[in-house]
Amino acid sequence: MNTADKRDLEEGRSFTPRFDDAGLIVCVTTDAASGSVLMVAYMNRQALDATLASGIMTYWSRSRGSLWRKGDTSGQVQHLVELRTDCDQDALLASVRVGGDGGACHTGRASCFYRRVNHTGASVAVLEMT
Amino acid sequence: MNTADKRDLEEGRSFTPRFDDAGLIVCVTTDAASGSVLMVAYMNRQALDATLASGIMTYWSRSRGSLWRKGDTSGQVQHLVELRTDCDQDALLASVRVGGDGGACHTGRASCFYRRVNHTGASVAVLEMT
Repeated sequence: MNTADKRDLEEGRSFTPRFDDAGLIVCVTTDAASGSVLMVAYMNRQALDATLASGIMTYWSRSRGSLWRKGDTSGQVQHLVELRTDCDQDALLASVRVGGDGGACHTGRASCFYRRVNHTGASVAVLEMT
Repeated sequence: MNTADKRDLEEGRSFTPRFDDAGLIVCVTTDAASGSVLMVAYMNRQALDATLASGIMTYWSRSRGSLWRKGDTSGQVQHLVELRTDCDQDALLASVRVGGDGGACHTGRASCFYRRVNHTGASVAVLEMT
């Protein structure tokens, strides 16, 4: 990438999300009320467009290979409050208001990040529920 | 994945991070003081082990194809406060104390997510500095 392109990407007003070789971009989703990170998921172009058009977070399910409008079955609909992108536009940060029971994780927790890595060096690491 | 394996992955105490086909796992890094999301980066097994062993956030630079101990050149060293993993262990969430000038982004901002996507539907989206 030349210097002008890099500057446009980092300092410009054009939203040019950089999808990876699989056509996906990572999205970090946070709770608008608490600011806590709820989940990490992926979007393809179609999912991103659907999210922007509807205001309802829509991801691409890599496991199912299909568009995934969060909450359609669980009721945990995520209403987009604000979307951001990072310096090199290869990641998204969504702030959302969560519907339904307020949770985001299919295990029943509010956040998918419910376990802490308890480590005493690289070789020993176990998980603790939080 | 069978039901028992899925349960171990989601409810167990074993830390078994799932690296992708490129040997990478995504890491969301947040500021321990404010809770705000600073950046998204990737780790391979070596970077994760180095992070756990040293307590200094170490990533894998996909652009440079090399291990990247954050702050070695910028001074923006990230001291690991807490590491979490998500339900299916294919993402990491790090809470860090930032050294140097307190920033995380190479553009000089505290966070890489300094632009908001200003949209009026899918077809029109521009970026606003925040």
